[in-house]
Amino acid sequence: MPPPLARSQPLERALRQVPGSSSGHQTEGKAELAAGLGAGPGAQPPAEGRGGGAGAGRGSPPPAAFCRPAFLQLTPEELRRADDHTGRAVQSPRDGRRRLPWSTGYAEVINAGKSQHNEDQACCEVVFVEQRPSLRGCLSSREGSGEKGFYFHYWALFDGHAGSGAAVMASERLHLHICEQLRELVEILQDPSPPPICLPHDTQTGSADTNQMSNAEDCGEVPNDAVPRFHLEKAVSHESLVIGAIENAFKHMDEQIERERASQHLPGGCCALAAIYLMGKFYVANAGDSRAIIIRNGEIIPMSREFTPETERQRLQFLALLRPELLGKEFTHLEFPRRIQPKELGKKMLYRDQNMNGWAYKKIEEDDLKFPLIFGEGKKARMMATIGVTRGLGDHDLKVFSSNIHIKPFLSCFPEVRVYDLTQYEHCPDDVLVLGTDGLWDVTNDEEVAGVVMEVLTSYEPNDPCRYTMVAQELVVRSRGVLKERGWRLANDKLGSGDDISVFVIPLGGPGNYT
Amino acid sequence: MPPPLARSQPLERALRQVPGSSSGHQTEGKAELAAGLGAGPGAQPPAEGRGGGAGAGRGSPPPAAFCRPAFLQLTPEELRRADDHTGRAVQSPRDGRRRLPWSTGYAEVINAGKSQHNEDQACCEVVFVEQRPSLRGCLSSREGSGEKGFYFHYWALFDGHAGSGAAVMASERLHLHICEQLRELVEILQDPSPPPICLPHDTQTGSADTNQMSNAEDCGEVPNDAVPRFHLEKAVSHESLVIGAIENAFKHMDEQIERERASQHLPGGCCALAAIYLMGKFYVANAGDSRAIIIRNGEIIPMSREFTPETERQRLQFLALLRPELLGKEFTHLEFPRRIQPKELGKKMLYRDQNMNGWAYKKIEEDDLKFPLIFGEGKKARMMATIGVTRGLGDHDLKVFSSNIHIKPFLSCFPEVRVYDLTQYEHCPDDVLVLGTDGLWDVTNDEEVAGVVMEVLTSYEPNDPCRYTMVAQELVVRSRGVLKERGWRLANDKLGSGDDISVFVIPLGGPGNYT
Repeated sequence: MPPPLARSQPLERALRQVPGSSSGHQTEGKAELAAGLGAGPGAQPPAEGRGGGAGAGRGSPPPAAFCRPAFLQLTPEELRRADDHTGRAVQSPRDGRRRLPWSTGYAEVINAGKSQHNEDQACCEVVFVEQRPSLRGCLSSREGSGEKGFYFHYWALFDGHAGSGAAVMASERLHLHICEQLRELVEILQDPSPPPICLPHDTQTGSADTNQMSNAEDCGEVPNDAVPRFHLEKAVSHESLVIGAIENAFKHMDEQIERERASQHLPGGCCALAAIYLMGKFYVANAGDSRAIIIRNGEIIPMSREFTPETERQRLQFLALLRPELLGKEFTHLEFPRRIQPKELGKKMLYRDQNMNGWAYKKIEEDDLKFPLIFGEGKKARMMATIGVTRGLGDHDLKVFSSNIHIKPFLSCFPEVRVYDLTQYEHCPDDVLVLGTDGLWDVTNDEEVAGVVMEVLTSYEPNDPCRYTMVAQELVVRSRGVLKERGWRLANDKLGSGDDISVFVIPLGGPGNYT
Repeated sequence: MPPPLARSQPLERALRQVPGSSSGHQTEGKAELAAGLGAGPGAQPPAEGRGGGAGAGRGSPPPAAFCRPAFLQLTPEELRRADDHTGRAVQSPRDGRRRLPWSTGYAEVINAGKSQHNEDQACCEVVFVEQRPSLRGCLSSREGSGEKGFYFHYWALFDGHAGSGAAVMASERLHLHICEQLRELVEILQDPSPPPICLPHDTQTGSADTNQMSNAEDCGEVPNDAVPRFHLEKAVSHESLVIGAIENAFKHMDEQIERERASQHLPGGCCALAAIYLMGKFYVANAGDSRAIIIRNGEIIPMSREFTPETERQRLQFLALLRPELLGKEFTHLEFPRRIQPKELGKKMLYRDQNMNGWAYKKIEEDDLKFPLIFGEGKKARMMATIGVTRGLGDHDLKVFSSNIHIKPFLSCFPEVRVYDLTQYEHCPDDVLVLGTDGLWDVTNDEEVAGVVMEVLTSYEPNDPCRYTMVAQELVVRSRGVLKERGWRLANDKLGSGDDISVFVIPLGGPGNYT
């Protein structure tokens, strides 16, 4: 009995909460527990500002450890203020500088001391997807179609942990990976007929005509077994091709971080939440614990769900059961409501396994003395006593504290993509899509966010382009709170969020939008 | 290339739809494709009626191949009529015979010829859960508490496939397994304080006092690491203990079928849908493609979801990826919209894997020529070309047609349990819980069911105990349709359900109920 417990002593240490910062704020974010694994504070010198969207390419110097979104266009002095944990000044795009597409509102604030810099990152871009030139040597594709393409609008938040490298790189690159995936689909998405099931040899897309042909003939589509073809062929929509493209873009982004993490100094990982507007539809892709909601005519429409050890418990337990070697003899795939003491062997304790949502009693066996794969509740829930989110980008080197047990096999880089068809409803200027990192949602719930949105918007003219920025700022300020003797406090005197907070407020209708 | 395709010829055959019956009804149910694996028609002689709920115990003769629910109290003549595929007479509890608890309505009808007998089964019981007598030799438990206990109400539908044995046994036993699981919890559920995390050595429950003591002291619950205990201990509700008990009851039921399938002649498997009313709450447990909805004040509240190759695709693909040996070199874990021809090797085809909800193109490789694990759409979707439901009881011997590839590792016997708190809302006599097998829902959607419920109920007095039976009958008749020249037809002239249809209509409020 004693050995497993003795061996898992480091886990006990890793599980212990980091004491609150000197200013007394909430600091039980997901990053601290993995803090020993990333670059420590001061490992990289802060740098002032950074290049534009695609600046930090292969062969360029390591990205700065501290930078803010390019669209903020911060001066060196503003950057210094943005990095000040004491003042926690709210940052937003300024009047007179570049305005975000659709007059999108944005605001952010640094944490209250839980990490040296703001580990959130953001990106907002309009991206042209140019059809990929036909591959050389491919006879079946049509020439001269190189200029075809379409635009998509893109907003994304990245909430980094255990270092800012992954979040910085993802904020610079994810939209490019999405663009790359969509390039394969330019003609197919622009053709109203159903996407071809099969493409000809060695082309990326070819022309739509070729595709149709290939579908029916080139691929030898002769109904076999004399069963009508419609029985055997699944219809695939344009929408699901876009979803697939976004899903694979996340995967390629994660692979790029894996490849370049050594040379580019990309410690840690990040949650990613991206909204893509394409051909009349919003695609909201979420991998992590950020959140997106639409507020339409006062009604709240959830556009994402969070991926945490609690929400993904069954997937994680299932994997651990099938691949016990990933647990390194330190963990059990069963969940228990608390740690078991060796002397409790033979008693009955509540548990649940990968199949259960309820709880039942089981007799405690030797193996149950290991540390549970999933442990803790709510914001304190951890997988392998290490990480509080179970989807995201990066974390390729993340290990259980003081062990050789890798976390990455349990993490998924795949987002859940939800679709909202903007053309199905006539939107007014007060209808918005709100994206926020967990710093917002930890202290302000959906209803409160909707309340702030409506309250602020009514105090500005519907055609005032600043109104969405004012909403974003107000959401950040109300979630951060005000500095009092006993730390940052909300209006109700509860603790404000001590985490980094980042918010996009994207208008869905009204004058001046959709450009 | 040819070998995989040649090897999978039997799969092609298995996938082929069984032609419609002579009367032209829908027969593409989930059972036919596995038909070669269960007992063939006539393997067991029909028997008239069967014993009560717990009649067919160990050592008793093999259960009859054909029987109807005991609560119908059918005479031999009525049983013969119930087994007639041509007349398809609707069966209900008769006036003057035993009335179901709460005046529950029930109706059923046999299929139009897709299997020899009605493979649906049903059960409705009021079960007393008696506290388990303390185990001999256990010092810590209190004596003289043997009479403690409580009742639960129970309604369940079982939709069998490839034989009726599993459905018959489950209809006779599942409630007993639920009772057995709950016996462990009698005192805990009757004690308003939170359930103890840990029970003393070798007791089943002991008294609540003992439990509380054991929780705090007996288990040596001394806060370790000087972290307050509330940080380390998860609260578990009474409700989640009941859910856990129901989940484990399904597992034990499945294990019993596995143990006794040879001696008791239990071919095939069954979907199971059970509603348990206990201490003011409904627990609706579903494993398969039956469905439960609540209709409350005209509003529809879904109380289950279906488990099919389409809804569980990602779980199944994930398992196949991690355990490729389960696929027997015949199947690929990837999904394609149609079969790939060997000559398409090197072309690009749409696919999706265990991580994706969208579709993307991939270059076809040798391995992709295998048969997809999941194939087909809607009611025609099959796992391994064999089965159209992915949760349920039984099917321990089910194999892919003409192969040695087992299906059972992919099936789950665990239900999803949803809870509805009856005390949170004042129910009127027209509020009901409807349970139905897929024979109902295939042709009648939620809204139509709600419409029939409201229409029929308004034509009977609120205190008429027959009104819920009238609703159940009407639901069955409208889903079966009327026999015309071109088969069974609905009012809109569409094909009626050719499947077995079984329906419970359970009133949630009103006079005479809750007894």
